[in-house]
Amino acid sequence: MAIIAVDMDEVVADALDEHLSRYNALYNAGVTKDHLTGRHLRDVIPYEHRQETEQIVHSEDFFADLKVMSGAQEVLKALSQEYEIFITTAAMEVPKSFTAKYEWLGKHFPFISPMNYVFCGSKHIIAADYLIDDNVRHFKLFKGKGILFDAPHNRQVTGYTRVKDWQDVARLFASIPVCR
Amino acid sequence: MAIIAVDMDEVVADALDEHLSRYNALYNAGVTKDHLTGRHLRDVIPYEHRQETEQIVHSEDFFADLKVMSGAQEVLKALSQEYEIFITTAAMEVPKSFTAKYEWLGKHFPFISPMNYVFCGSKHIIAADYLIDDNVRHFKLFKGKGILFDAPHNRQVTGYTRVKDWQDVARLFASIPVCR
Repeated sequence: MAIIAVDMDEVVADALDEHLSRYNALYNAGVTKDHLTGRHLRDVIPYEHRQETEQIVHSEDFFADLKVMSGAQEVLKALSQEYEIFITTAAMEVPKSFTAKYEWLGKHFPFISPMNYVFCGSKHIIAADYLIDDNVRHFKLFKGKGILFDAPHNRQVTGYTRVKDWQDVARLFASIPVCR
Repeated sequence: MAIIAVDMDEVVADALDEHLSRYNALYNAGVTKDHLTGRHLRDVIPYEHRQETEQIVHSEDFFADLKVMSGAQEVLKALSQEYEIFITTAAMEVPKSFTAKYEWLGKHFPFISPMNYVFCGSKHIIAADYLIDDNVRHFKLFKGKGILFDAPHNRQVTGYTRVKDWQDVARLFASIPVCR
């Protein structure tokens, strides 16, 4: 069975939505995803907010509260009939996220075994046929095919197969012959 | 740079020593590694001890207290000059171990970046040239070369390149031409 590796934040979990909500509540601000085309949150906020804004994702409960990206559950469940699905998340950047990420995945993606979760840093250690990710840096040394999941910060990046949402992922894989 | 993936328990961390110490203290027993040739601890203890013995590794502090396997630090530090080293541990079997494992690695292997830690379940997701592991099940679908690290439970397993300790790992890699 071919393997699809799937990133977590901005691909199956809407971490940006939660980050914006918490930032806006903290500073009584009104930053939306539309303000972030080609940029990260840290690029559009006052310099003096940076440290505290970075700390938001390091709080114990941040990853427990994330919304599921629309369509991720249905499409991954369907794809898991034909492919082996792994969740590959750069969790080492936020070590406090381990337990919350593990529990969140079990709650929202019960059809994926915890034996198929990978908490890593550099993703060139991942052996998969496809990697669906919002960060192109993970595609550089990856030996399979990188599929760029659309996010505000990567919208101006070119040169990769881009999917704009999970329906687009379903269409893409429907067009690929399955190797058995 | 070629990649060496290195398992954690029984390869760089002496989890069995700690498990035996705690089991023997709990039941006033005297099980040693010599009793475990070809067997796991669960195979040699009274049936009624099994559940509590299994729980020992699920306690929060278990992985914080492990001794480093003799020679692991020196040999991995030397190999890290010629190879990229990743620590690949089946942490998903014991989710409570995440933080203790992360901190233990940082303390004892400060020359390995946390970006090169991989907490996983199934290891056929690992893209590496070599995998040093005490469990041959991880070699089945692994596309690189599996190197079996000697442990009491695997002593009767044949058909793999076996290393008996870290000095043996150093000798093995000294005999392999380095690809740059």
